[in-house]
Amino acid sequence: MSHPFIHDLPQQRVVFAPGAVERVAEEAARLNFSRALVIATPGSGARLGERIVAQLGARSAGLHAQAVIHVPVDIARAGVAAARDANADGLVAVGGGSAIGLAKAIARETGLAILALPTTYSGSEATAILGTTEGERKVTLRDPRALPRTIVYDPDLTLALPPPVTAASGMNALAHCVEALWVPDRTPVTTALALEALRRFAVHLPRAVKDGDREARGECLVAAWLAGLALGAGTALHHKLAHVLGGYGLPHAETHAIVLPHVTRFNLVAAPQARERLADALRADDPAAAIEHMLRGFPIPQRLREVGLAKEKIADAAAEVAALNISVPRPAGAEDVRALLTAAY
Amino acid sequence: MSHPFIHDLPQQRVVFAPGAVERVAEEAARLNFSRALVIATPGSGARLGERIVAQLGARSAGLHAQAVIHVPVDIARAGVAAARDANADGLVAVGGGSAIGLAKAIARETGLAILALPTTYSGSEATAILGTTEGERKVTLRDPRALPRTIVYDPDLTLALPPPVTAASGMNALAHCVEALWVPDRTPVTTALALEALRRFAVHLPRAVKDGDREARGECLVAAWLAGLALGAGTALHHKLAHVLGGYGLPHAETHAIVLPHVTRFNLVAAPQARERLADALRADDPAAAIEHMLRGFPIPQRLREVGLAKEKIADAAAEVAALNISVPRPAGAEDVRALLTAAY
Repeated sequence: MSHPFIHDLPQQRVVFAPGAVERVAEEAARLNFSRALVIATPGSGARLGERIVAQLGARSAGLHAQAVIHVPVDIARAGVAAARDANADGLVAVGGGSAIGLAKAIARETGLAILALPTTYSGSEATAILGTTEGERKVTLRDPRALPRTIVYDPDLTLALPPPVTAASGMNALAHCVEALWVPDRTPVTTALALEALRRFAVHLPRAVKDGDREARGECLVAAWLAGLALGAGTALHHKLAHVLGGYGLPHAETHAIVLPHVTRFNLVAAPQARERLADALRADDPAAAIEHMLRGFPIPQRLREVGLAKEKIADAAAEVAALNISVPRPAGAEDVRALLTAAY
Repeated sequence: MSHPFIHDLPQQRVVFAPGAVERVAEEAARLNFSRALVIATPGSGARLGERIVAQLGARSAGLHAQAVIHVPVDIARAGVAAARDANADGLVAVGGGSAIGLAKAIARETGLAILALPTTYSGSEATAILGTTEGERKVTLRDPRALPRTIVYDPDLTLALPPPVTAASGMNALAHCVEALWVPDRTPVTTALALEALRRFAVHLPRAVKDGDREARGECLVAAWLAGLALGAGTALHHKLAHVLGGYGLPHAETHAIVLPHVTRFNLVAAPQARERLADALRADDPAAAIEHMLRGFPIPQRLREVGLAKEKIADAAAEVAALNISVPRPAGAEDVRALLTAAY
């Protein structure tokens, strides 16, 4: 029987179309933004941010292109100050998890609504989950103010995403889907969305990484949205582990990608129903092997030592994760986590 | 590529658990109901309604057990009067599509919020779609006021559902899912939910009809919810046809069940992608044949002549449906519809 559940999926408006970036002013107007601050990362993110400022026209309050991965608290404070200085009445976040994460941190303090234009597969735009880092510590919380009110997906914004970023970001989204199958707060809706995302990624992510064609990119962007919605049900061992490692300065999506096959293999032993559904969605007898095979084919780091983890940090991370007493679908003690991290190292 | 879409799934709170009926007062309180009018059908529906009145205790404004299939306008007017006479500040609908439909008609006039306790697989509780009939004419519209704010699913309420009702109601829900695959307003979310519902029904509906066991009934109730959410994307030939026939006094769910294999076969010719996904979800090479096979195994009417359609009405119905100019996924002219109805007759 379906386990008992309560479903309370937050409401968002989502517009998906090639060329949808041209509808950003219209969507900003629908949110009653008259002075929207555009949030982006520096560099290529800032160039895209300038484009959005131009699209917003009179509804723009300028560009704040200071987003940094994992939203360091100083960066968050500077963002809040920028929104106040600009007298902004709305936020338009364009980019991946870093830009959207900064907008969320600003929204939490200011109550400003967010319109998100995602350019990666982080899925952050579909959740009220907000993470900030202070030193080596990543703090994650949920706040309804952090949930973007509108998402505009334009697959054309992702055409220039380099293959390594495409691969790592896609694997990060895939991780949301796998964990969604056993988190306690899952519902039949989050399960359905996770499985649909897995089906789409299994076919289209390798194509998006290899050829970067428009169709595959559109399918991956949709899958990332579904994965983000599924992520709203909560996270388990995989994400806790990735967050702890993120606190050590490891890159977010790449770390997810590396750890995922190992955590999946560890957990599927104790989750026969999830294993069956995952096998069906990925069309593979051994889902963990299928995910590992996908990772092996991608031009991204394959092991934790390649992304800057110091070997002596493994025991610290294992202890930190074990202290969280994760038990679903399988209890993860310090020794389990150490073994898992060593294998991924 | 995913076709361009706008997603605006309405927000509802959904509580699912065996025994959840005992939480109805708590959920009514959450909606600030202090005088809720309970809406049900007469007979066994009324007995269940009395149980809900008892559960609501001081929050109840009594029982109005006058719901009738297809919500005749007179019945709707009487319901509005009853809510006003009772000075109700909320509606609690318990039953299938008839009870929930009447509550929707009352909500549209009065603005009262609805808490729904569904006991069949109609899926009406998950949509803002409202149908009323005046004579032979069924009028269907959407109104956000008609959307139940909270749904409480208690599979135990469905244990006594007779096999024919279980089968017909399940086939009705299955029809929502099939059409959801090609309606123009579909989104990847409605597609995912429709396919998940199909997967669950394919396994559990025959079991629920045959054995009526609690697990199968719980899975079917969940599938019916997902099917109702998918139905929110809109309807096409199948539903238009069933609604026109409903106007002639044919039973709603049974008519859906009879017509479904025929409409599915007609449409899949023009929808290769939907055909592939349907085949995958039903684990069958020929999805229309699989649906027909399921119908054949159920103790319900198999042909339109068995549910009271006069043969001379076929031409009328065909003309009425053809006038709607349905073109997705395949244009349905009067001759097509006539042939289809004759085959189902």
